[in-house]
Amino acid sequence: MIRLDSRAADFSDAFARLLSVKREISEDVDETVRGIIAGVVSGGDAALVDYSRRFDRLGEDFSEATLRFTDEEIEAAMAQCPPATLAALRLAAERIETYHRLQIPEDYIATDDLGVTSGWRWTALESVGLYVPGGTASYPSSVLMNAIPARVAGVPRVAMVVPTPEGRLNPLVLAAAQISGVTEIFRIGGAQAVAALAYGTQSVAPVAKIVGPGNAYVAAAKRRVFGQVGIDMIAGPSEVLILADGHANPDWIAADLLAQAEHDEAAQAILITTSDTLAEQVEQAVERALGTMSREKIARASWRDYGAIITVANFDEAVPLVDRLAPEHLEIETEDAEALSLKIRNAGAIFLGSHTPEAIGDYVGGPNHVLPTARSARFSSGLSVLDFMKRTSILRCDPAALRALGPAAIALGHSEGLDGHARSVAIRLNL
Amino acid sequence: MIRLDSRAADFSDAFARLLSVKREISEDVDETVRGIIAGVVSGGDAALVDYSRRFDRLGEDFSEATLRFTDEEIEAAMAQCPPATLAALRLAAERIETYHRLQIPEDYIATDDLGVTSGWRWTALESVGLYVPGGTASYPSSVLMNAIPARVAGVPRVAMVVPTPEGRLNPLVLAAAQISGVTEIFRIGGAQAVAALAYGTQSVAPVAKIVGPGNAYVAAAKRRVFGQVGIDMIAGPSEVLILADGHANPDWIAADLLAQAEHDEAAQAILITTSDTLAEQVEQAVERALGTMSREKIARASWRDYGAIITVANFDEAVPLVDRLAPEHLEIETEDAEALSLKIRNAGAIFLGSHTPEAIGDYVGGPNHVLPTARSARFSSGLSVLDFMKRTSILRCDPAALRALGPAAIALGHSEGLDGHARSVAIRLNL
Repeated sequence: MIRLDSRAADFSDAFARLLSVKREISEDVDETVRGIIAGVVSGGDAALVDYSRRFDRLGEDFSEATLRFTDEEIEAAMAQCPPATLAALRLAAERIETYHRLQIPEDYIATDDLGVTSGWRWTALESVGLYVPGGTASYPSSVLMNAIPARVAGVPRVAMVVPTPEGRLNPLVLAAAQISGVTEIFRIGGAQAVAALAYGTQSVAPVAKIVGPGNAYVAAAKRRVFGQVGIDMIAGPSEVLILADGHANPDWIAADLLAQAEHDEAAQAILITTSDTLAEQVEQAVERALGTMSREKIARASWRDYGAIITVANFDEAVPLVDRLAPEHLEIETEDAEALSLKIRNAGAIFLGSHTPEAIGDYVGGPNHVLPTARSARFSSGLSVLDFMKRTSILRCDPAALRALGPAAIALGHSEGLDGHARSVAIRLNL
Repeated sequence: MIRLDSRAADFSDAFARLLSVKREISEDVDETVRGIIAGVVSGGDAALVDYSRRFDRLGEDFSEATLRFTDEEIEAAMAQCPPATLAALRLAAERIETYHRLQIPEDYIATDDLGVTSGWRWTALESVGLYVPGGTASYPSSVLMNAIPARVAGVPRVAMVVPTPEGRLNPLVLAAAQISGVTEIFRIGGAQAVAALAYGTQSVAPVAKIVGPGNAYVAAAKRRVFGQVGIDMIAGPSEVLILADGHANPDWIAADLLAQAEHDEAAQAILITTSDTLAEQVEQAVERALGTMSREKIARASWRDYGAIITVANFDEAVPLVDRLAPEHLEIETEDAEALSLKIRNAGAIFLGSHTPEAIGDYVGGPNHVLPTARSARFSSGLSVLDFMKRTSILRCDPAALRALGPAAIALGHSEGLDGHARSVAIRLNL
């Protein structure tokens, strides 16, 4: 953890260093992934079985016939889940759906004075593939956050893939898929699953877009199939930035910083405060709390390597720092949190006030928890219904409209050396 | 050009082959581009001058001091433009602006029964870089189509780069920039310009996102700086699909097919018709028209290698073919064009009726002409105001709301093994 003070002479350099820290180790797995994709394209289901047996250490009972989970298997998994957790998942699903329904965009079409009819029409993607990691990173909440916006958008087919290393799978992941309206689930993962979704096999019909988090192989495979299909953003390690004044509760702030730090040793948690006292108290509270954590090792490494506490003279001074950090998650626990939030341009999600720990947003708040990381909130947004739709523009000229606009189009066509463009207009006007 | 008939026994295979034709030659320039980007990052303005002199064949008078166009140079360029073309550009700009203003998204914020306040806020990107190719592909209309949505979105800083090979530049490009509200213009291009926009130099401040078309070097550079900055889609060769019945004018249809074909030898123009007679007439009309074209060589090569005329029994049969082709541009010249258009899911832009040649949309219709190519209309949309904005989600719980939602968040946190998440909620509820 580093302590910075905006009053220090070297603050500007120190802050620039904090900004430029690379937290992600990029493994070079591209050649391996290229081979796996080619294998699935040529080998289909048989290749999927082969790769899955090898990489997920599965036995002979894993075959073409068991690639897809049956309805009975999904029902059985749901029956294994603690009812209280299922109820929590259902509450989360309801709130996520309600929030995302508000994002459904409107079509527009109108005719102007010249007789030009123009506008646009939104349509849902025809199909979406949802990647869900296996093992400890297999989060049912992520299934909800990716699948529900697709369903709300009206995507008729949502195919999920999830690897089952050694045959193990968190039944809550299947429950979350069922609750979210996922239409088919395959027990495959890695680059081979991405290839199957992009190119199709005998059992897996290809999709139009692939979303969801994954390891370095999955990320490399998504980059490689991009163009053949759409992909979502490639997520980096998670991060939180907290703005807090002297009234904030240091134990609460410490808990929020560590909730972020426990994700991943590459996660980042930063506090910016106007209070030297709070800075001191939070530093101590973090140390105390670390010892009580089940994921202490991860959280301690993240806090040690990437954590920061920055003191500033006032929050106006903090605003440009926030915009440069462009945090995935921004908590504002200050007296006038909302007014301060309106000054911020770059943040994936903002959590206002002291009773809105980011974990509420991770699960049950309603907004999406798939958010831009690694400063990409400067130019991108969290996952939404729009990511599962696309817009077709519409244009119609009546003869009078073409007469009115045609000459300008002809002039511009000729000016660009595209005489054929000009001619396609002129021929209709007998020009 | 190939002729296909849906009644033929091998139609399904032949159509699949048409779909899978690769029209783009992907040059492997990645290593070169990597070197150029590293050169600009370490060398700044001096490297920009060096690369530009070399690649754009510029003399000693090209220096750090002349990287940026002065206001006087821009005014002088505008004075060189034919007044009629400037008037056409201004008409186009007005119509593009009017259309894109309708796309400005609305913020949303509301408090639900539990006391949870949630919603989102849209903000403009802080800065955008616009790449404009040099030479013959230097289209003023593309400047309007990229820069106006950024200005409408509220982006305060729009920096344009355009190479000036041998010192030459189409003055209309500068005029279009001026009309569109571009805030600064640099006479640089290639991977070095992309690097400057992404990382900044002494003269070029870095931007948050880079948009605009370019050659293989530009495309490779954009892919490489993605993450450091946002990028738009990587555009492939242009394409048109026309649906026409027996009432269509074969000369008009031929003109529209060739307006597409003249773009690029890799462009694609396809007609799907229910009329064998029209198919025959259009084929002849294309041959006649080709001989009259200033870009005959390009158009002929495109039509020869990638053109297609497909006859179908009826337009319901055409709908799934259109959705599989997912054309950048779709013209519908049939009796009930609008009803047919509503059945189409995948198209970048639709042009309705016989008086709406696609060239109108390229210039003065109002909708954007930057559209998804190479079947990517299955999962993406044309350029819009949204591409220059991003959405921050907002969440606020009051104490009662946290009490209501907290237990579910705690249950889900524990179920995912993220006890620190659970604790950040529980500590506020004394649980």
